[in-house]
Amino acid sequence: MTVCARAAGRVKINLMTGYESGGPTAILLMKCPDRKGLVRELADFISRHGGNILHADNHLDYETREFFGRFEWELDGFTIAPERIADAFRPTAEKYAMEWQLHFSNEKPAVAIFVSRLAHCALDLLHRWEIGEMPGRVAAVISNHDDLRAAVERRGVPYHYFPITPQNKRMQEAKQLELLRSLKVELLILARYMQVFTDEFIAQYQNRAINIHHSFLPAFVGASPYARAYERGVKLIGATSHYVTPHLDAGPIIEQDVVRVTHRDTLADFMRKGRDLERIVLARGVRLHLEGRVLSYANKTVVFD
Amino acid sequence: MTVCARAAGRVKINLMTGYESGGPTAILLMKCPDRKGLVRELADFISRHGGNILHADNHLDYETREFFGRFEWELDGFTIAPERIADAFRPTAEKYAMEWQLHFSNEKPAVAIFVSRLAHCALDLLHRWEIGEMPGRVAAVISNHDDLRAAVERRGVPYHYFPITPQNKRMQEAKQLELLRSLKVELLILARYMQVFTDEFIAQYQNRAINIHHSFLPAFVGASPYARAYERGVKLIGATSHYVTPHLDAGPIIEQDVVRVTHRDTLADFMRKGRDLERIVLARGVRLHLEGRVLSYANKTVVFD
Amino acid sequence: MTVCARAAGRVKINLMTGYESGGPTAILLMKCPDRKGLVRELADFISRHGGNILHADNHLDYETREFFGRFEWELDGFTIAPERIADAFRPTAEKYAMEWQLHFSNEKPAVAIFVSRLAHCALDLLHRWEIGEMPGRVAAVISNHDDLRAAVERRGVPYHYFPITPQNKRMQEAKQLELLRSLKVELLILARYMQVFTDEFIAQYQNRAINIHHSFLPAFVGASPYARAYERGVKLIGATSHYVTPHLDAGPIIEQDVVRVTHRDTLADFMRKGRDLERIVLARGVRLHLEGRVLSYANKTVVFD
Amino acid sequence: MTVCARAAGRVKINLMTGYESGGPTAILLMKCPDRKGLVRELADFISRHGGNILHADNHLDYETREFFGRFEWELDGFTIAPERIADAFRPTAEKYAMEWQLHFSNEKPAVAIFVSRLAHCALDLLHRWEIGEMPGRVAAVISNHDDLRAAVERRGVPYHYFPITPQNKRMQEAKQLELLRSLKVELLILARYMQVFTDEFIAQYQNRAINIHHSFLPAFVGASPYARAYERGVKLIGATSHYVTPHLDAGPIIEQDVVRVTHRDTLADFMRKGRDLERIVLARGVRLHLEGRVLSYANKTVVFD
Repeated sequence: MTVCARAAGRVKINLMTGYESGGPTAILLMKCPDRKGLVRELADFISRHGGNILHADNHLDYETREFFGRFEWELDGFTIAPERIADAFRPTAEKYAMEWQLHFSNEKPAVAIFVSRLAHCALDLLHRWEIGEMPGRVAAVISNHDDLRAAVERRGVPYHYFPITPQNKRMQEAKQLELLRSLKVELLILARYMQVFTDEFIAQYQNRAINIHHSFLPAFVGASPYARAYERGVKLIGATSHYVTPHLDAGPIIEQDVVRVTHRDTLADFMRKGRDLERIVLARGVRLHLEGRVLSYANKTVVFD
Repeated sequence: MTVCARAAGRVKINLMTGYESGGPTAILLMKCPDRKGLVRELADFISRHGGNILHADNHLDYETREFFGRFEWELDGFTIAPERIADAFRPTAEKYAMEWQLHFSNEKPAVAIFVSRLAHCALDLLHRWEIGEMPGRVAAVISNHDDLRAAVERRGVPYHYFPITPQNKRMQEAKQLELLRSLKVELLILARYMQVFTDEFIAQYQNRAINIHHSFLPAFVGASPYARAYERGVKLIGATSHYVTPHLDAGPIIEQDVVRVTHRDTLADFMRKGRDLERIVLARGVRLHLEGRVLSYANKTVVFD
Repeated sequence: MTVCARAAGRVKINLMTGYESGGPTAILLMKCPDRKGLVRELADFISRHGGNILHADNHLDYETREFFGRFEWELDGFTIAPERIADAFRPTAEKYAMEWQLHFSNEKPAVAIFVSRLAHCALDLLHRWEIGEMPGRVAAVISNHDDLRAAVERRGVPYHYFPITPQNKRMQEAKQLELLRSLKVELLILARYMQVFTDEFIAQYQNRAINIHHSFLPAFVGASPYARAYERGVKLIGATSHYVTPHLDAGPIIEQDVVRVTHRDTLADFMRKGRDLERIVLARGVRLHLEGRVLSYANKTVVFD
Repeated sequence: MTVCARAAGRVKINLMTGYESGGPTAILLMKCPDRKGLVRELADFISRHGGNILHADNHLDYETREFFGRFEWELDGFTIAPERIADAFRPTAEKYAMEWQLHFSNEKPAVAIFVSRLAHCALDLLHRWEIGEMPGRVAAVISNHDDLRAAVERRGVPYHYFPITPQNKRMQEAKQLELLRSLKVELLILARYMQVFTDEFIAQYQNRAINIHHSFLPAFVGASPYARAYERGVKLIGATSHYVTPHLDAGPIIEQDVVRVTHRDTLADFMRKGRDLERIVLARGVRLHLEGRVLSYANKTVVFD
């Protein structure tokens, strides 16, 4: 069971004054073995405490009979205080053997961006955060190079430089973990971070670390996907955002997209077109996660968008 | 209040023997002013009669506070016989002032395809129906020309030829209405039908007549959209499937898509590329409607896909 | 050196009477090592015999310094008779060590469609041919099953049934080759044909046999790509048309496209969405080939579209 | 006749050290009434002075018999010095009554970015310029607000603030023109600039001012396209980059693209999705122009991509 408070709901825009939030909402994201009456029981929990359901979405996997649900309701008028909802819901969750998460749209979870030298994804995320588009709060940028320090710090974000060698890797990861915990970071974003984490590190952030891979997975797993796509003569190139697992580029896929290429495109053109794709596919994956829309199971995802 | 029995649910495929149906389901599609407890009440109606909810989806329009819902549950184990569900649900519906429809996945509603001379959309729909892909039953093809008779009749579908002139239009429409009623047709599909119906005719099939317009609406309303797109020098052409209303090409949009064109494309190329687009966009719109996934309001649609 | 007469050029449409051809054109498709003066020499050959160039397109591969060109000119006013152009051009071709093809837009090359049981691609090609959209002539449909005989024969196309077993495969292929030669077939289209040809058979139709594979190659090479895509949890599925080579699903790619899927899509939905994709991606590949727009090299293609 | 030196050709990338240029090239972009021998004459001009043609592309408009061409050749080995090519080519150009431009890939033309308050397009262009992706040089950012000064100046780009009122508009435009001339600006980029220029101003930059409009033109010309798209219930929203003419949002279209929306998307979601689209569609239009790939005629464009 995981209880976490994250930013979700939809940001509303005031056309004159800029961005502002809608009324705060609670989001329950859950899965459990399917049983009759589940939707009723969940709706009942919300309704009998005065909650007005804005979105109810669910999915049933026919093969495994696993039930997935996402319920979002207005906190305004809800008779249980936000900090007490988890306790109030726990008996219901236990009755159905649920895995569940609780998010609040007015809380912006801390995220850490990991980047190496290619800056486009990391800077794009920072830009989205600056204009109020990201439903999270950038608590740190972490890199194995010192190149982007100035660009990051001038935006008021702390920059942490952890050079990595085969010898110091575990030690540095330990320090990174310490930092992430001290900052209460709830999501790692690997924005073209060229280091592979140890399994031990990844285990701490299961379904909470999103990577962008610059290919249409499962094509071109691993290094140099653009060069291999160019070599193969494909007519579309892709990008994939996915949760990180111990298996390289094999975690649950959150979002994918493609762009057309032709024989006129050089490898540099593949990379240029790919940069636009990577930025968008990573940003979409991050947004879906932070809004409490993604559930992972059987190495796949259910995305309530 | 409309009660209608239509094919919905997802066709399942047996990889060895071809297409076969999943277990039968009921689908409730409804809208009403938002009130607390709606989801609970709807879920409760299904659950207390032994129904297992496969899909629950809803939408709240923030501005109008209108609530839209789609609930699909297994008929297997449901304690109310299908033909009595409408009566059993009516009190709940009236309590909340709902507009609602009831569909059953194992009933294939009758559809009529209207076509003039351009055959690609109509033949495509017939092909989809032949291979079991359309969740409906083609009861008739109706045309103001006799050209496609052979192609239609060899598929075992009745072909009805109604030549239209300004003088006979109302009389012919009256005969068409008679035919449609005798066949219990529940959906009209205008597959490049070049006649405009009278308002009186359309009023009989509000939100039950789907047209394909060969442009990205609202661009290029009316005649010759490809020629006008060519003249304007657009870089994408589109197609739109929408419900027919008395206002030309202005009804609620169900589905749209586009395809890229370049300066190298002649008007004939626009038409060729457009044919592929029209077939797919119309077929998608028809499928969404027949599966009970589309609700219309404020000249827009809610599509539970 | 290959000299072949194929349909190319762009079909023009008369909006009132239907499809009609533009003026006939010649198309030269060539490749050779890059040398200064190549474009001039090719343009000079056409111009000094009174030809008006409609399209000149070329491509230089920077790494291999291979030059690729496509020149299309009006036969009207050209002082060399079509049947003598190849002889007249040969000295130029030999001087530059070209591989080259000559096509004529008013000649429709014979094609043979190979299909097993899944009919959608084959029937789609027949429909395109019937409405004048395919720049070729369907000379035969060949199948290892007898299922589609009626659907094909009622369109006036000969249907040839060659049941295949491990024992009779080579013998049947020999008969197929004999048939293809007697019909002067210039392009094989594998429209979901579930047999793998022997290398000897394929060698006869190098770069003249187009297959549709129902995945975004190189992902999901081989059997059951939809099932494997479903298993992997991808968010887009694809289709690829490519030239057949002795290596399974590894030949030069002509065209690819994708369509979005979600966790709500069952395997049957993948297949349904995929059918639309397969039809379009195969038809595009066939059209590009028949219009003399595709050159193959280094297991890739140059597509002059 | 316009002679201008602009950055074109394809930037190549060194995977280890970052971006570097390929060998310098010359690009001739021309149009004139079609005549036999044009391609030969153009190819001959290049070849007889030792130029190696990398790309030759042309287009013939069948209706107007207007001929459009783009030729790119290596300057290495070309016997005419770059600064003398225009004079050497002029007699040929005059013989055929050409309109023509000459670009050089190793010269980066000066561009000015106009922006009001919405920063995403302008900052995106600056980012592309910083990482070497833009084939131009940002000489100035010009705004009718002072909001973005810091963000621009910290990138080392001069920021010019011209507040506009109905009273001072012509005077401010005169000052802007003076500034643009002093900076030798060859392209204006209107990156969500909310002022409409006077016709006199626009006349100075015909086919040299690119605007981004946040709709799929010709749908939703003018103000608030997202709000109107939302109101109409479209299923796709678009963006269009086009040359500015005296007629609002009616100039020649260079590039368009779309993104899918659903009933779940609020107007704020339209705007968020639109921002990604606008950035990419504007950047593509700018790139195509700066690489000498766009010719304008009859209020359309020929794009040699």
